[in-house]
Amino acid sequence: MSTSSVLDTIESDSPRHLDELVQWLKIPSVSSDSRHVADVGRAADWLSEKFKRAGLSVQTIATDGHPMVFAQTPAVDGAPIVLVYGHYDVQPPEPLDQWITGPFEPTVRNGNLYARGATDDKGQVLTHIHSVCDWVASGTPLPFQIKLLIEGEEEVGSENLERMLPQLKEQLACDCVVISDSSQYADGQPAITYGLRGIATYEIKVDGPSQDLHSGSFGGAVMNPAIALCHLLSSFVDDQGKIQIPGYYNDVQSLSEEERKQWRQLPSDDGQFAKAIGVDALFGESGYTTDERRWARPTFDINGLTSGHQGEGVKTIIPATASAKFSFRLVPDQDPQKITEGLRAHVERHTPPGVKVALEPDHGAPGMLANTASPFMQAARDAIESAFGVSPVLIREGGSIPIVTRFQEVLQCDCLLMGWGLSDDNLHSPNEKFRVADFHRGIRASALLWQNIGQLI
Amino acid sequence: MSTSSVLDTIESDSPRHLDELVQWLKIPSVSSDSRHVADVGRAADWLSEKFKRAGLSVQTIATDGHPMVFAQTPAVDGAPIVLVYGHYDVQPPEPLDQWITGPFEPTVRNGNLYARGATDDKGQVLTHIHSVCDWVASGTPLPFQIKLLIEGEEEVGSENLERMLPQLKEQLACDCVVISDSSQYADGQPAITYGLRGIATYEIKVDGPSQDLHSGSFGGAVMNPAIALCHLLSSFVDDQGKIQIPGYYNDVQSLSEEERKQWRQLPSDDGQFAKAIGVDALFGESGYTTDERRWARPTFDINGLTSGHQGEGVKTIIPATASAKFSFRLVPDQDPQKITEGLRAHVERHTPPGVKVALEPDHGAPGMLANTASPFMQAARDAIESAFGVSPVLIREGGSIPIVTRFQEVLQCDCLLMGWGLSDDNLHSPNEKFRVADFHRGIRASALLWQNIGQLI
Repeated sequence: MSTSSVLDTIESDSPRHLDELVQWLKIPSVSSDSRHVADVGRAADWLSEKFKRAGLSVQTIATDGHPMVFAQTPAVDGAPIVLVYGHYDVQPPEPLDQWITGPFEPTVRNGNLYARGATDDKGQVLTHIHSVCDWVASGTPLPFQIKLLIEGEEEVGSENLERMLPQLKEQLACDCVVISDSSQYADGQPAITYGLRGIATYEIKVDGPSQDLHSGSFGGAVMNPAIALCHLLSSFVDDQGKIQIPGYYNDVQSLSEEERKQWRQLPSDDGQFAKAIGVDALFGESGYTTDERRWARPTFDINGLTSGHQGEGVKTIIPATASAKFSFRLVPDQDPQKITEGLRAHVERHTPPGVKVALEPDHGAPGMLANTASPFMQAARDAIESAFGVSPVLIREGGSIPIVTRFQEVLQCDCLLMGWGLSDDNLHSPNEKFRVADFHRGIRASALLWQNIGQLI
Repeated sequence: MSTSSVLDTIESDSPRHLDELVQWLKIPSVSSDSRHVADVGRAADWLSEKFKRAGLSVQTIATDGHPMVFAQTPAVDGAPIVLVYGHYDVQPPEPLDQWITGPFEPTVRNGNLYARGATDDKGQVLTHIHSVCDWVASGTPLPFQIKLLIEGEEEVGSENLERMLPQLKEQLACDCVVISDSSQYADGQPAITYGLRGIATYEIKVDGPSQDLHSGSFGGAVMNPAIALCHLLSSFVDDQGKIQIPGYYNDVQSLSEEERKQWRQLPSDDGQFAKAIGVDALFGESGYTTDERRWARPTFDINGLTSGHQGEGVKTIIPATASAKFSFRLVPDQDPQKITEGLRAHVERHTPPGVKVALEPDHGAPGMLANTASPFMQAARDAIESAFGVSPVLIREGGSIPIVTRFQEVLQCDCLLMGWGLSDDNLHSPNEKFRVADFHRGIRASALLWQNIGQLI
């Protein structure tokens, strides 16, 4: 069977491709929630079975948390090795009442498949899994080796993979990592992402009196932990969006004028952008465009606030405790460790009397920049142009794939981030979706990428 | 039967007095929670039945919310009329996991009765109900008329009673209102409270994007509603505890040097106070003592915070919305209406672009000061000294009984606030309690008060 007939087979198999995605999405593999441990395991098993059926060599790699699924095609002497990386775990689906159809009841509406994980990342990583499995199942030998590592802890920071990476160095050795866990630049305008922001996440807890107090009998004489928390969090950032933690901007890599010029040519539209997310006005650091703010400037965001009475009605208390989850997005060369040190010193300096503050760093990863001049990059540009009918633009993204920088460091490889999603896919939000047509185009682009890389040899 | 033998009967009936309190406390009459509407009704019915059994004339007064129970003894020409006011509704019991025994399973430990409502206010108001019922049941005529109005909405702001008060003016006409819904000054030091703070409560909601957004893809380009909320709340008060809303202190009645001097003679101990509530250090407006801060200075407290991801693990979102419940304690002559106007203008001035802010006032009431020179005050001092063995001190309290100022205004009456509770009774908190001995002393003091008032005639 020739390469072109492999592509034809892939094309004719599209109903099965979608059916299998629906099956996988039905498994609620929420990695951050201990109630879903067994479900995460089931999502891994589903994938192992798929690889086995296609004839790939498969291994489940146990970790201290959720398992990784590793598969590979036969080694080819003198040819490059490509590693596909992705994740089968998903974000928590809450708030559930905002989903039109259940997060784990995948449903197609208006050409989109709605489910938690549809775009992030089951739907996107499955494009590569399908193309490799179908290629192998067809009996046509791949002209180079493809390895696939699909993990179950990306949404909780990939800490186990990160720690195990040095010992997996030989097994994962490759010339290029291929990842689809990002977005097209706009509807109809595919993109290759050459930069990602890093991340540092935290929980902060302010403890005051040993229990909730009556705000009448005690108010005015006792530090209110919720007020202390608001003052602390407010001290992190001013009302212009500029972060106020001393040293925070020290290592920030500035944008080159060339890069800023290229981005300004992209078809961006602030009005459209604001409308799509439902706000009257955008807001951000002055002196930067929306793309610059999202892709190349570091940020502070509160992810959650918890304190005192949250139910119906009034309860006039001084709450015993108040807490927040928050995160920074970092840019190259900010170091999460140094950010934590600066933050800790700032929090200590700003802790008022009468409360105790505990700062818990969760996970951290630096940002990354890929080599835009690599031959793999060219192979990807051609594959995407052929599958989507449009040449991709080169962009950065504001999100973080913490493991990517570590792959670059440990495996010394190139990196290809090809996003099939759209910016309104609601990843991490209710009604997450993935356009069915882009799923199928992604599978085709993936197969063409293998064809193009084969021709590099 | 003579007055002194009425008092003996009351004394010998103490086991039944406690049994009846336990029965009443078992009814979860949480007025702010719509799931407890029927329970609130049951608590009112229990009380009506008790009044009927004792031979009082009883009426249930329907409101738009929970009913009020009104009872009275026969009118006595030329004698004063006393109105006992209290409430049978209670605060929500949450957080439930912090209760040693269930909030609605009254339990005696170390001489204290633990239950939601034990001190606030079922236990305290029942002291007057018992003394009146026992007196009437004994067949000895009371030398003056006592009316009792026990309502079911004090914990949600007494709005219906407040609105209906003008039309109930004749029915409730009296020379003095007697209320036990406050505390002794210290263990072994009973007090009469001649001043209360007012209150104004609010909910504020900050709405940003139409749904939670990925903090990577959008962070830096969109106003985060939780950050906007923290900035807003932080702008209400500085880090020295001074409220920053323009005009907030305009109408604050200053403390007289004489009052300050009297209070400084009270046996207060900041170290003990801090230890009792479990904090390392107290905190409050500089230039004031702890008692002054609690009783005579206005405050701002956050009662609850809600936003974004509050569950296990990390969820890196920009939450679509963030909200807070908060309250001010007001002092004489602050007007809740004017406070709301100033607050609204301040919030509008400080609302950042990209979010919508909704401020909802809940309930408001001004503070109050009673006439310390009235003959009822002397009758109460003597009754308390006789029942507790110690002369009461005259104090103010930081809490609010919103209806008291309205009684003064509409009924043109004196006011007696005699608290049988203790400052560590955990009212509005888990493990609310009431000392059993103080419950019985309260019943005796109440009966002696009726005796002393009878001698005024």
